[in-house]
Amino acid sequence: MTRSALALAACLLAGSALAQTAPLPVPRRGAVAPAPVDPAVIALQDRAAHDDTAYAIVTGLTTQVGPRPDGSAAEGRARDWAVEQLKALGFANVHIEPYDVPTWQRGNESAAVVAPNPLPLHVAGLGNSAPTPPEGLTLPVAWFASFNDLLLAPPGSLTGRIAFVSNAMAPTQDGSSYGSEGRARFMGPSEAARRGAAAIVIRSIGTDHSRAPHTGVTDFAPGVTPIPAAALSVSDAENLERLVKLGKPVTLHLVLDDHQIGPRPSGNVVAEIPGTHPAAGVILIGGHLDCWDLGTGAIDDGAGIAITTAAARLLMGGGPHRRTIRVVWFGDEETGGFGGQAYAKAHAREPHALAAESDLGADRVWRFGTQFPESAAPLIPRLTAALERIGVVHGSKLVDGGTDVEPMLALGVSGIDLNQSALRYFDWHHTSEDTLDRIDPDQLRQNVAAWATALAILADAPEALIPAKP
Amino acid sequence: MTRSALALAACLLAGSALAQTAPLPVPRRGAVAPAPVDPAVIALQDRAAHDDTAYAIVTGLTTQVGPRPDGSAAEGRARDWAVEQLKALGFANVHIEPYDVPTWQRGNESAAVVAPNPLPLHVAGLGNSAPTPPEGLTLPVAWFASFNDLLLAPPGSLTGRIAFVSNAMAPTQDGSSYGSEGRARFMGPSEAARRGAAAIVIRSIGTDHSRAPHTGVTDFAPGVTPIPAAALSVSDAENLERLVKLGKPVTLHLVLDDHQIGPRPSGNVVAEIPGTHPAAGVILIGGHLDCWDLGTGAIDDGAGIAITTAAARLLMGGGPHRRTIRVVWFGDEETGGFGGQAYAKAHAREPHALAAESDLGADRVWRFGTQFPESAAPLIPRLTAALERIGVVHGSKLVDGGTDVEPMLALGVSGIDLNQSALRYFDWHHTSEDTLDRIDPDQLRQNVAAWATALAILADAPEALIPAKP
Repeated sequence: MTRSALALAACLLAGSALAQTAPLPVPRRGAVAPAPVDPAVIALQDRAAHDDTAYAIVTGLTTQVGPRPDGSAAEGRARDWAVEQLKALGFANVHIEPYDVPTWQRGNESAAVVAPNPLPLHVAGLGNSAPTPPEGLTLPVAWFASFNDLLLAPPGSLTGRIAFVSNAMAPTQDGSSYGSEGRARFMGPSEAARRGAAAIVIRSIGTDHSRAPHTGVTDFAPGVTPIPAAALSVSDAENLERLVKLGKPVTLHLVLDDHQIGPRPSGNVVAEIPGTHPAAGVILIGGHLDCWDLGTGAIDDGAGIAITTAAARLLMGGGPHRRTIRVVWFGDEETGGFGGQAYAKAHAREPHALAAESDLGADRVWRFGTQFPESAAPLIPRLTAALERIGVVHGSKLVDGGTDVEPMLALGVSGIDLNQSALRYFDWHHTSEDTLDRIDPDQLRQNVAAWATALAILADAPEALIPAKP
Repeated sequence: MTRSALALAACLLAGSALAQTAPLPVPRRGAVAPAPVDPAVIALQDRAAHDDTAYAIVTGLTTQVGPRPDGSAAEGRARDWAVEQLKALGFANVHIEPYDVPTWQRGNESAAVVAPNPLPLHVAGLGNSAPTPPEGLTLPVAWFASFNDLLLAPPGSLTGRIAFVSNAMAPTQDGSSYGSEGRARFMGPSEAARRGAAAIVIRSIGTDHSRAPHTGVTDFAPGVTPIPAAALSVSDAENLERLVKLGKPVTLHLVLDDHQIGPRPSGNVVAEIPGTHPAAGVILIGGHLDCWDLGTGAIDDGAGIAITTAAARLLMGGGPHRRTIRVVWFGDEETGGFGGQAYAKAHAREPHALAAESDLGADRVWRFGTQFPESAAPLIPRLTAALERIGVVHGSKLVDGGTDVEPMLALGVSGIDLNQSALRYFDWHHTSEDTLDRIDPDQLRQNVAAWATALAILADAPEALIPAKP
């Protein structure tokens, strides 16, 4: 997952503005008779509990494709692989919808303390980072314990220095600490540049204590000239912070051979289970096919495309459904959300009953939230009763959606969030450690069961999911 | 820790031949009155439970020195830092005992699958690896599920191929799986070279599932020309094994710019708490100051020098002891045990009451074993009763000693093992992840308490620890 800084802050800290029209779920007090659960849904949940389609998809993707950064040849191979897989799984109308994406490319990168004592550091450039000169920068460090402290630095105060921002991120089940602590990555480089810094290194936005740096995109504000910007691993950042606190001036050497290389081809891969009632609207689900170059994109977001695809496939067995289920493996999500924007541009005029994505790993779904019109309110108790069977509670939170479906949600399309536990996700997010090893097959199957449950209820619901025109 | 392949196999699989003269501990059946524990020892254990000297040592070493591979300038800085620390801690006779060490140096390294699909792999050369040509090797893979399978390959069968040996290592509390599975590293490259392989990659000898490869020394047998030899991370090795099992021929590209650079200065750092009875013999304890270049040497073996030094320092408060306690921060351990050999060469003629080392991380001591002459047999129940108070059991296993003190044990010197739990140790051993983050301060303090307990009992014991001349 990624997000632009402002959209993320708005979404996670204040609740999505897009969702303000959705009804708040009614808190239930005392014993209320639950909605009955359709035996077909129960049977589907049982099948999901033994279905290995999702694990096979993410295994194939991480083994036979591997890293697939935006605009790369590998991303192209991923699309071809995707078409082959989706056809083999029985989907209809499988095709690629191409578009171009502005592409940033990582080169050689290194960092080291050179004074008061030499110490090599593990580092990864942030997406959109400027390059250092080829010989690197060797400059004193200006340390800030947090992004907020950086904001307090006066203009010009960082000239001739490398800013070092070291706020730590604590694990949260809903991932909200990514929004607050992540500002050091989303906005830190732009704010350091405004204050004259020659470069910036941040403590990785991650909840681990490893040597694997967490990359991710950073956004330079309009008018701000990009500077070299990188993340140190949490372990290296803590070591650097200890050195700084010993009181002697600390000098860093930083090399980032990272460049913007212009537009390159990307694309969304689209597949369908055609429905019987086109006017009831398309159910759009999916995840993103691209990933950062450091890992193999298992939890971000091989899991998301695997979960939504496996869930949709489970529905193929039940005869035709009212609504078309459209599975999209979005292209660029990580560097700007161009995949979701391209989808919206191409499909905004089609009636959509729902837009939802899975993009927070493969740990169990623990909560769901909805953004439905009043006409679909009766669906909520049905979803609640069915999802409770597999350990998912109905939260009071409005939907966040996600980068891929945000442009559709912004048009007023209904949404559902199936929130995964993020307690481990940010240990590995955007690192070399985002590999198949991080996926627990049992929890992955619970995800498939949750999505299959929601799809089964939504695909055939007689209630209108498309808001009435005002 | 490291060991030469044969010494290790002999020690761990069959029990150390050096220890065959030691008395087996008597299994206790039924309720036997325990030996009383000296109140001074209890007070010492309580002080150890709140002592942060060990954590301060390993923090300083990993922050202010960092990686310190054998024969490097950084190892020299580590010795200077060590002298400063040991003097500041109040030790006497602090000095460096220099010697030269044959030095192997890592350069640029990379590996990737090039067919049937591109896939970058995380790799680290093994100590003593030969270099590849500068442009690397691009050759088909010959896969062996285990070292034993490699041994079954006929001579010449690997010509023009890169051998890939992928046996997995399960965690064991006593670390014995390192001895059995580690043969792929200790001897695999030599055996692959004998069979004509152009190079070898092995699955890291580690119990993790990360991207961090485990380096370590490999030994080419006399007459065998070294070949390029490297370890893939466990995660990458599993990915490569999955690719191989898909059935298409797999081609690897491997670059190892690793070289033997000849003899370089190394040295042991020696410090003492002088005793009152020189004839009672020196108690030699310590760990090793060198470490592999990938991490910062926290668990291997900053912890060992920190634990033994902090324990000795706790004894300073109790007035003079009968025996001199000599703490040695050994130089080269990882690439050939030259530090321990240099010590034995210089000190073999001095009377030694005991030689013991700490070199298996910083997790809790769970067991102890002794190699004592009959004259010191009464010490065993005293040690047992005192160590049981902090959760350490008396094992039936004879002592292993370790690479640093092995040359002294081979001369018949008494020994004690304070076995640490190795259940997590091999997750990070010899990787970039061997950093301060891996040390649990509580468990580290329990180690200090265990060593302080043993030292307090042994330093003043009236029993003879030096075996009588036959």
